[in-house]
Amino acid sequence: MKGIIENLTEELTRLPGIGRRTAQRLAYFILSMPEKDARAIAGAIIDVKEKARFCRECFNITDDELCTICRDESRERESLCVVEEPSNIAVVERTNFFRGRYHVLLGSLSPIDGITPERLKLKELKERIENSGVQEVIIATNPNTRGEMTARYIKELLAPCGVKVTRIAYGLPMGGDIEYADEVTLGKALEGRRELL
Amino acid sequence: MKGIIENLTEELTRLPGIGRRTAQRLAYFILSMPEKDARAIAGAIIDVKEKARFCRECFNITDDELCTICRDESRERESLCVVEEPSNIAVVERTNFFRGRYHVLLGSLSPIDGITPERLKLKELKERIENSGVQEVIIATNPNTRGEMTARYIKELLAPCGVKVTRIAYGLPMGGDIEYADEVTLGKALEGRRELL
Repeated sequence: MKGIIENLTEELTRLPGIGRRTAQRLAYFILSMPEKDARAIAGAIIDVKEKARFCRECFNITDDELCTICRDESRERESLCVVEEPSNIAVVERTNFFRGRYHVLLGSLSPIDGITPERLKLKELKERIENSGVQEVIIATNPNTRGEMTARYIKELLAPCGVKVTRIAYGLPMGGDIEYADEVTLGKALEGRRELL
Repeated sequence: MKGIIENLTEELTRLPGIGRRTAQRLAYFILSMPEKDARAIAGAIIDVKEKARFCRECFNITDDELCTICRDESRERESLCVVEEPSNIAVVERTNFFRGRYHVLLGSLSPIDGITPERLKLKELKERIENSGVQEVIIATNPNTRGEMTARYIKELLAPCGVKVTRIAYGLPMGGDIEYADEVTLGKALEGRRELL
């Protein structure tokens, strides 16, 4: 005999970072919400599962042919930011720094795991560059071995295209303390030093 | 133009303690879940809103006439634990200490906010005690002014019934450090001291 609150609690604990206590608190909160709002959450969950597909252009998640960014005519076509996962787009968007478009690789190279270039959206990236006015490709893959390897691969892949290929900077995280920086990051920060103007 | 992931992210931020980043992480996780599991979460949310009602006996949340605890014949009828809210039941249950039954007041006394005894399930509590074999009523209302006032009220309300009325103990939280205890709690801990046997 399992009650409806216990059932919702259990279902919510499937989510990452949601322990039993949090799940229960959420369940009672949902119980107290206006029915309309609770239905909106449930509906949004179903929508994501039913309608999600990849953007034909950039491989972001969308429920249409093109994602909201690719449909947005105000986004610049001159610069293209390459990321590993659709979720990375929102991280870059939050900076409010980038006004160009994206290309999602849907992973990063890892030959040992069988993730070879053909498994990623690299062919599609090259085709996009060839048939467009992109002048700079900013590679924002992860700052780790796989992301680095993928960045190097893209650099060579796009060499014949005559497009500028850049990599996001390594350095000390803002607000951090140099005392606590690891030596690799600090080395990269020194290497990437810029003249103060 | 709002994408399905952005929509789910926004809906999830309605929940307490779920900020934008967490909501987005959850949205992408839901996207990656088996459809069956995602539907189970959505269904559990709808169920809670559609089927929730109060247990006829104890005022816990249930989808039936009686809640799972009131239906459970193995629960002792001799002791009754009085709590303020349905969610408090799970907190007591987690201790695995109490094998009796519950009574939910659906609030605590607060005359200044217009929460008088008639607004709480106090009449129902008295009727339950009169028509049952309950020998001890354990008052587990909150350790604050309102909970305390409510406990005193129940003590007097049940005086004619000849039932034993107890209050959960105040004291230092387990695993805490006496150095950090506030003086009120520490005073209560001294007052409630027990002989070591």
